[in-house]
Amino acid sequence: MAQFINTKEALVTEAIDGTLCTAGGQLARLDGFPHIKVVLRNDWDKSKVALVSGGGSGHEPAHVGYVGKGMLTAAVCGDVFASPSVDAVLAAILAVSGPAGCLLIVKNYTGDRLNFGLAAERARTYGIKVAMVIVDDDIALPDLPQARGVAGTLFVHKIAGALAEADADLDTVCAAAMRVIDNVCSIGMSLDTCTVPGSPKEDRIEDGKAELGLGIHGESGVERVDFVSAADAMSLVLERLKPHAGHAPLVALLNNLGGTTPLEMAVLEAELDKSNTIAGIQYLIGPAPMMTSLDMRGFSVSLLPLSGDDLALLQAPVDAAYWPGCRALEPPVIHPIPDGLTPIKPIPSSDPAAARFIEYCCDVFIKAEPALNALDAQSGDGDTGSTLAGAARALKDAIPRLPQADLTQLYRAIGLELSQAMGGSSGVLLAIFFTAVGDAASSGQSHVQALKSGLTRVQEVGGARPGDRTMIDALAPALEAMPEGFAAAANAARAGANHTAEIVKAKAGRASYISEDRLKGHNDPGAEAVALLFESLSK
Amino acid sequence: MAQFINTKEALVTEAIDGTLCTAGGQLARLDGFPHIKVVLRNDWDKSKVALVSGGGSGHEPAHVGYVGKGMLTAAVCGDVFASPSVDAVLAAILAVSGPAGCLLIVKNYTGDRLNFGLAAERARTYGIKVAMVIVDDDIALPDLPQARGVAGTLFVHKIAGALAEADADLDTVCAAAMRVIDNVCSIGMSLDTCTVPGSPKEDRIEDGKAELGLGIHGESGVERVDFVSAADAMSLVLERLKPHAGHAPLVALLNNLGGTTPLEMAVLEAELDKSNTIAGIQYLIGPAPMMTSLDMRGFSVSLLPLSGDDLALLQAPVDAAYWPGCRALEPPVIHPIPDGLTPIKPIPSSDPAAARFIEYCCDVFIKAEPALNALDAQSGDGDTGSTLAGAARALKDAIPRLPQADLTQLYRAIGLELSQAMGGSSGVLLAIFFTAVGDAASSGQSHVQALKSGLTRVQEVGGARPGDRTMIDALAPALEAMPEGFAAAANAARAGANHTAEIVKAKAGRASYISEDRLKGHNDPGAEAVALLFESLSK
Repeated sequence: MAQFINTKEALVTEAIDGTLCTAGGQLARLDGFPHIKVVLRNDWDKSKVALVSGGGSGHEPAHVGYVGKGMLTAAVCGDVFASPSVDAVLAAILAVSGPAGCLLIVKNYTGDRLNFGLAAERARTYGIKVAMVIVDDDIALPDLPQARGVAGTLFVHKIAGALAEADADLDTVCAAAMRVIDNVCSIGMSLDTCTVPGSPKEDRIEDGKAELGLGIHGESGVERVDFVSAADAMSLVLERLKPHAGHAPLVALLNNLGGTTPLEMAVLEAELDKSNTIAGIQYLIGPAPMMTSLDMRGFSVSLLPLSGDDLALLQAPVDAAYWPGCRALEPPVIHPIPDGLTPIKPIPSSDPAAARFIEYCCDVFIKAEPALNALDAQSGDGDTGSTLAGAARALKDAIPRLPQADLTQLYRAIGLELSQAMGGSSGVLLAIFFTAVGDAASSGQSHVQALKSGLTRVQEVGGARPGDRTMIDALAPALEAMPEGFAAAANAARAGANHTAEIVKAKAGRASYISEDRLKGHNDPGAEAVALLFESLSK
Repeated sequence: MAQFINTKEALVTEAIDGTLCTAGGQLARLDGFPHIKVVLRNDWDKSKVALVSGGGSGHEPAHVGYVGKGMLTAAVCGDVFASPSVDAVLAAILAVSGPAGCLLIVKNYTGDRLNFGLAAERARTYGIKVAMVIVDDDIALPDLPQARGVAGTLFVHKIAGALAEADADLDTVCAAAMRVIDNVCSIGMSLDTCTVPGSPKEDRIEDGKAELGLGIHGESGVERVDFVSAADAMSLVLERLKPHAGHAPLVALLNNLGGTTPLEMAVLEAELDKSNTIAGIQYLIGPAPMMTSLDMRGFSVSLLPLSGDDLALLQAPVDAAYWPGCRALEPPVIHPIPDGLTPIKPIPSSDPAAARFIEYCCDVFIKAEPALNALDAQSGDGDTGSTLAGAARALKDAIPRLPQADLTQLYRAIGLELSQAMGGSSGVLLAIFFTAVGDAASSGQSHVQALKSGLTRVQEVGGARPGDRTMIDALAPALEAMPEGFAAAANAARAGANHTAEIVKAKAGRASYISEDRLKGHNDPGAEAVALLFESLSK
């Protein structure tokens, strides 16, 4: 699959420079491209213990996204899934280490251990105090003492980072990091593999299956399991973590492995919140992409039992751009539905003239049903007549319960009846029309002026303009002509409706999707309906 | 493709409750599930103009992620790619509108326009001041006046949100929103389609092609183009935006459509920064997933010419969790490589006894080359002998330039020579060993004690322990026995090496990947090499 890169070779250096161009001067890099890819705090004065982490790229936002006050001092980046060189790590150590020394936080992969390890030795020959910790939080391979380092590394970054920021010495920071490493556990699950730049995608996981216990370098999971649901997936992951989880209170870290949508992550978060598998998960970091495996559609959960100042350290402020924060898991806050959602039923009242007028209009549409359907069949799906006639029948039935004697309420009530009787856009548009007419009438506008206000609102909301081949092409000129009487209005509506037969580039509504030759020569059925109404009223 | 959901029907409500359980009490929802899915500020007192936005789900973090002080007051969520109902929008308006009124910010899709529009009419019948703006920033379909609303909507959210927070009245907020809408333009590009929950994935875009001018609902792009590189893609997108871009200074918004990795987005960011296609792009929002289309592997760029207080409004603080900030585009800050990266060449000195000792050891490994290769062939790739002999030959050549008379420097220099002469892990491990021995010697440790310190460091870094079937199984007992002389050390090394033939569960190094029956009965070649060395030295 193609990717938005230029070359595989330049991918990481280009990405670093991209990131730095909006870093607001808070981050810098060393001048060692392409081999030395080190991002460091630009405000660093070497007065505290420096924290250096890193490893292969492809785990973004790790590790550059965690460089900042209160977290990492520098990140050393290898190429995708490849350890950085000894020289790169050494350059980072030399660039950031002052008298307080430097802690290397390394995920447990042979290349990283060796390259960070040798760099540490070299730095020590310069008299620099360097300590190194190896994170091995993955519990997927219980028989292997060399467990991998995965997303649990974030706990080490944050807790050690907060301590270092608070002026703790190297031994204290290192001891805290080692304590976290001893207690943190993680496991991941994925529905699909990742796409390594420059390599074809491995289509390893068949539909309906998931891999449990995978690393962050595209390697296979330890187990192939059936995928049933998000609930089942979270339950399985928590079952596996349970023997390693330690005592409450626990903080969980919910990591997006890269390609899982925020909707899915939020569903998994809800499942984590609901689960009783592990008691005492009281805080959550994420969900967020924190330690990704390129675009892998998966997630991981890491758990840390809280002790000492851990919670305060995890919640201490940071300047690192991608630390998502550590928040209490709480039930959702739910507000009641506001009053007024159910429309107030208008009080029926009687005005025989108004009732007769409404009935007359309805009968026009009922009578026109076959003709309008036939016209619509030329340019649409042939149901305009039935839709309007159906709505007219429903409105006729509603006449006895309408507030006939209160014009404002009557318009609003007609709008409500139509919105309930008609499906789709046209029902909503007519409801908007009549509701807006009612509003305008209540503010003292004349009858014709109120109708025009309704039309304006329909145009605003529906987006149609005169000339777009809609009912507006008949209704707008009819309302303009109304002061001269119904005959003038009827003539204007007819002229407008007939003109629609010449409009072959529909710009709104359904007709905008229909080919020009199907439109030419046929009036728009909505405009025709309006013309028929005014012609009847003028009689 | 499977997704981490439970049911399509419950997806959005579950995701909302997931999100709310770590909202820290800042967000709430209305009690209207499943039909009314409204998330609102929990600290809202109706004292300012309320901002309501929303639409179909599948665009996360839009719109819930932008609810918070300084941005949206409420988000109304439909199901995936489906407009929320009139009732849902009305509930949101009623829940948040006070005397200052409410602005609806709606993306230009028929369903959203109609449902938000009718809800506005209904709210007005209660005397609520409601204004509505329609965002139509997409320039992909230049002939269609009904342009879609895409990621440029974020500019409206932020600028209107900052104004409302600063106590502007509804007319002012609405006028600012309309001015932004008149000036913002966007276009998107994608390499793959999105996966709609519950529907099979459409495999529409062939390899090597991209779609330009796509919406955010999985619909096809307007053009199918060849995909060449990130640089070319960004250039094409900026070319299309250029006629619509307005005058400098401009702010760009670089949106991840969902499935693009952070590495790719950072490369696109670098290309945007480097491009001269449009002059005067001085600020950038993102890159980040802001208005996504589920997991679509694509991006969009939106541009807004800055006027008035726009920059201050875009940079005003917000509590909304997913607003990525608006930062100046600046050249990366680059620090020089620190001194000390090139190891200081030791000053050669002469000590004939030391030189003879080194030469003697080297000859042992050179002589053992075929035997060690043969042994390694039983359990590995048969090159241990050649690797060690090659390193030994290189070290012999280096003897004249070694600091023979300075033991500390001599160890370090041997470490350096070996790390340069040998590839792979073993070279790094031996370099770590000798560098650590040199360090220990310089701190006054005895010869044997210094060698043990080196061994400890190798174990820390390499992760191997005695019993793991490595050279440590011979070296550790040999060093233990050294105080009793070379003969005792040789015996101990031999016993240790021979014991490795019984270790069939290797736990470190390459042998851990090899089957048990291939290991049984053969000494580990590294341990054998150590035994051979000590046996020679004891003669």
